[in-house]
Amino acid sequence: MEVGFLGLGIMGKAMATNLLRHGFKVTVWNRTLSKCEELVQYGASVGETPATVVKKCKYTIAMLSDPSAALSIVFDKDGVLDHINGKGYIDMSTVDADTSSKISEAIKAKGGYFLEAPVSGSKKPAEDGQLVILAAGDKALYDEALPAFDILGKKSFFLGEVGNGAKMKLVVNMIMGSMMNAFSEGLTLAERSGLNPATLLDVLDLGAISNGMFKLKGPTMLQNSYSPAFPLKHQQKDMRLALALGDENAVSMPIAAAANEAFKKARSLGLGDLDFSAVHETYKAPDHSS
Amino acid sequence: MEVGFLGLGIMGKAMATNLLRHGFKVTVWNRTLSKCEELVQYGASVGETPATVVKKCKYTIAMLSDPSAALSIVFDKDGVLDHINGKGYIDMSTVDADTSSKISEAIKAKGGYFLEAPVSGSKKPAEDGQLVILAAGDKALYDEALPAFDILGKKSFFLGEVGNGAKMKLVVNMIMGSMMNAFSEGLTLAERSGLNPATLLDVLDLGAISNGMFKLKGPTMLQNSYSPAFPLKHQQKDMRLALALGDENAVSMPIAAAANEAFKKARSLGLGDLDFSAVHETYKAPDHSS
Amino acid sequence: MEVGFLGLGIMGKAMATNLLRHGFKVTVWNRTLSKCEELVQYGASVGETPATVVKKCKYTIAMLSDPSAALSIVFDKDGVLDHINGKGYIDMSTVDADTSSKISEAIKAKGGYFLEAPVSGSKKPAEDGQLVILAAGDKALYDEALPAFDILGKKSFFLGEVGNGAKMKLVVNMIMGSMMNAFSEGLTLAERSGLNPATLLDVLDLGAISNGMFKLKGPTMLQNSYSPAFPLKHQQKDMRLALALGDENAVSMPIAAAANEAFKKARSLGLGDLDFSAVHETYKAPDHSS
Amino acid sequence: MEVGFLGLGIMGKAMATNLLRHGFKVTVWNRTLSKCEELVQYGASVGETPATVVKKCKYTIAMLSDPSAALSIVFDKDGVLDHINGKGYIDMSTVDADTSSKISEAIKAKGGYFLEAPVSGSKKPAEDGQLVILAAGDKALYDEALPAFDILGKKSFFLGEVGNGAKMKLVVNMIMGSMMNAFSEGLTLAERSGLNPATLLDVLDLGAISNGMFKLKGPTMLQNSYSPAFPLKHQQKDMRLALALGDENAVSMPIAAAANEAFKKARSLGLGDLDFSAVHETYKAPDHSS
Repeated sequence: MEVGFLGLGIMGKAMATNLLRHGFKVTVWNRTLSKCEELVQYGASVGETPATVVKKCKYTIAMLSDPSAALSIVFDKDGVLDHINGKGYIDMSTVDADTSSKISEAIKAKGGYFLEAPVSGSKKPAEDGQLVILAAGDKALYDEALPAFDILGKKSFFLGEVGNGAKMKLVVNMIMGSMMNAFSEGLTLAERSGLNPATLLDVLDLGAISNGMFKLKGPTMLQNSYSPAFPLKHQQKDMRLALALGDENAVSMPIAAAANEAFKKARSLGLGDLDFSAVHETYKAPDHSS
Repeated sequence: MEVGFLGLGIMGKAMATNLLRHGFKVTVWNRTLSKCEELVQYGASVGETPATVVKKCKYTIAMLSDPSAALSIVFDKDGVLDHINGKGYIDMSTVDADTSSKISEAIKAKGGYFLEAPVSGSKKPAEDGQLVILAAGDKALYDEALPAFDILGKKSFFLGEVGNGAKMKLVVNMIMGSMMNAFSEGLTLAERSGLNPATLLDVLDLGAISNGMFKLKGPTMLQNSYSPAFPLKHQQKDMRLALALGDENAVSMPIAAAANEAFKKARSLGLGDLDFSAVHETYKAPDHSS
Repeated sequence: MEVGFLGLGIMGKAMATNLLRHGFKVTVWNRTLSKCEELVQYGASVGETPATVVKKCKYTIAMLSDPSAALSIVFDKDGVLDHINGKGYIDMSTVDADTSSKISEAIKAKGGYFLEAPVSGSKKPAEDGQLVILAAGDKALYDEALPAFDILGKKSFFLGEVGNGAKMKLVVNMIMGSMMNAFSEGLTLAERSGLNPATLLDVLDLGAISNGMFKLKGPTMLQNSYSPAFPLKHQQKDMRLALALGDENAVSMPIAAAANEAFKKARSLGLGDLDFSAVHETYKAPDHSS
Repeated sequence: MEVGFLGLGIMGKAMATNLLRHGFKVTVWNRTLSKCEELVQYGASVGETPATVVKKCKYTIAMLSDPSAALSIVFDKDGVLDHINGKGYIDMSTVDADTSSKISEAIKAKGGYFLEAPVSGSKKPAEDGQLVILAAGDKALYDEALPAFDILGKKSFFLGEVGNGAKMKLVVNMIMGSMMNAFSEGLTLAERSGLNPATLLDVLDLGAISNGMFKLKGPTMLQNSYSPAFPLKHQQKDMRLALALGDENAVSMPIAAAANEAFKKARSLGLGDLDFSAVHETYKAPDHSS
């Protein structure tokens, strides 16, 4: 199976390497061509432009860092559109719904097939082939790409029309953001009520609501350490977008709304670039209560 | 080791049986004495009154159904107080802080030692010795009872002064209640945005916030099935008490407050006796949005 | 018309004086008897104990400073209960519902008639006969006391059973507390968006939501001046009690709940003894937002 | 003073009439020219196109029904831009900040002067010259237009740069929307607690938070009558935009956020086209509480 792969950043390189290791023939391209060399060692071919990669392969996967990179690779000179007629294009970058729609429409207008397929998971899951893939768009292309998805991820979903991949991520991140606030309130209440918050972590871990996020973030939160894995300002942006999605569909979500305001409070305290768990700081208070 | 055991309901019977199986000598008492017979088969002795059990044993464990039972076994004629001087009393019933304090003071005034030790977990964990024990009060008594706790539970905590066991349960239940609301909002947003909420469950289960409650309750919530494991009105009561604890200590908890109002809304819709996951109903709406 | 009047503090003295000026015969009593002298100048008689006042008059009005004073004047030796049989007792003090019920039951058990009649308004309205009277209890006694109420207040209401006076005050104060938060949010949003918040006050004052509280508190809030007219901790207590009343009746009130959490936040910042408008401080933030 | 006036709907006709009555020479234009005739009776001249009106007058006021009308009158053939060089243009329509900016930039690019001047107040205040005018943009033009503003409104404000007029309206409407929710909660709590909500209206009207909105809307809300003066969906849109303005400036506003969710709930119940006071319906509940 010959597939194209555009974008060899941290994520893309790990993913393309996995495909090569599992017997796929892969033609790669990267803006900085030198990054392609390591992949050549594993048997990759190199394309000179996105257009030549697309021309050569039945379908092409892209993994770019942001919406502007995702757009330029498609719309720029020698871009994906040039040879997309009759071919498939799978964008696995995390982009907003508008960007995804713009790309989708352009691809389809040129006679190509499009699938958005944002992933949940970062470097380690990418290396281990343990991503979760949230695909939406052309179902036949999804079916065709399943052997690749099976290598890249532990699970892939086909979610229907383009945009649904991004929406699903928003819903998950909204729940996560509300949970982080509930967790912060609990830690603060424990501490201020004379309980040891570290013991609360142990008790939580033994019960029905035990989860990876509490286990991972709890100990660092108690040390007021918020090294950014997922920056607070991005979490707040996702809360805002999820609330906007609810607004469109007349869904009242008071918990998410309250959590969003707490994240905004955290931004106003200058914590936007720290990890989203830094919202914990907004629940604390000086000692002099009255 | 000779220990007393008062109260052979579903929980108490399972717990006393476990102690007997692991070599403890146990003297049991139950209001309905016939319930003691099965335990006798496993080697238990039977005491005629709480007072006689306490007199005979170094310490006595109680597992009653509610605060009034917990109080009467201590304060009634032939109750625990009669022979508590120099002995230990461990109340593992789930009672409010006031009840626990009242019992604690009476026991101590008579020269006894007291430990509150409410548990997390119900019938199955009780049978399997997998309870989580939240103990508080007399530390020496806790240390003495540890061999028994190691049989009854997978983990026990000593939390300091009497009342802290109840507080810890409130904090955990508060986080749980907020999470249930965040989860309900997510399910509703998914459905109203054209996503399959059953797929959301699958996606959640693969990520960092995957937890037992989502896994257990999600599928039944999607079927609008709310058979009461933990009644909504009890969950709302715990939210209220947790918020009151926050009020005492000047802790602002906007997420818990919003969740509490949602549970109150659910009560106003007549859902108080259903499972607490029925709060999901308050997020739904008729189809005719504008 | 011969009426009794117990309690000659700031409020009581102004009220009793008004009754005398309008032709009522008034027999007064005060714990510190010297305070009665000024009233004697206006024609008052003096009773030696609450009991003698009650015995002499068809009905007796009380205006005490707090619940414990309100209770002791009734239940202590030579108190109201001694001669209440067949007489009326009108408590205009601001007390909680429990205190009011306790007094009501004792009065009725002795064959007396009871009316609670807390007022809205402080020193100036008391002097000017411009109080608002929220009466509840015995309707016949209310009708009998109307001529006095017409002198003491600009308006009196009969609200039904004992307890309803206190409840009505809670509802009003709850709305007021939520409005104060909405107002603070608006002032903060104006300032942070580059608008002059003083201009906002002018604009508000010209529109449909113009009200005395915004006019009175707005200018001082902009000066960060919170001299306590109504202490924040009392406002927060009223929010809490109003929310508890809602809890009893399964009324979901998310705005009041959010406002209550903001007042709690203010308490945690040590602002509990300042005016309730100090909740404004919780909405501000350092300049370094991100 | 010769001024132009574009748009003779309900508002515009009343405003132009007022200018004529107070001695202004006014040249009017309306898309349906027949509407100009009545104004001619009061001494108005008629222009054939927006362009001819602008050419003839020192400055021209526009009062259009919506953003698209406001845009087309400026940008269409024979529109305002044609002769704006050196002239003033005052748009008193209620439009969003983007529309206002677009018009402002085009006018200035052509050498004209621009003022946005949205008003608070509807038909009756327009007829009575009692509008409140929230102007922003060119200060010299504002000073020049003050004599006209003094006729049209009871008060006008100059708020700085273009966009500030719209922002000021959002802040006011946000406070109003939160107050409406606080009011609805109070009415509901009164009713469910056994108090007469009509009496609550009377009590509120005698206190410090008495305001025109409570007086106007309270009685109809108690009759479940929500004839749309200000449609709920527009109020919710303003809440959303105010929250977005807060998001831009990192202002946390939990009360507005909770109120916004209640308005969304109302939309989900199909109440979006009713008056914004219909949010009251979301606080009610069936009788069967538990």
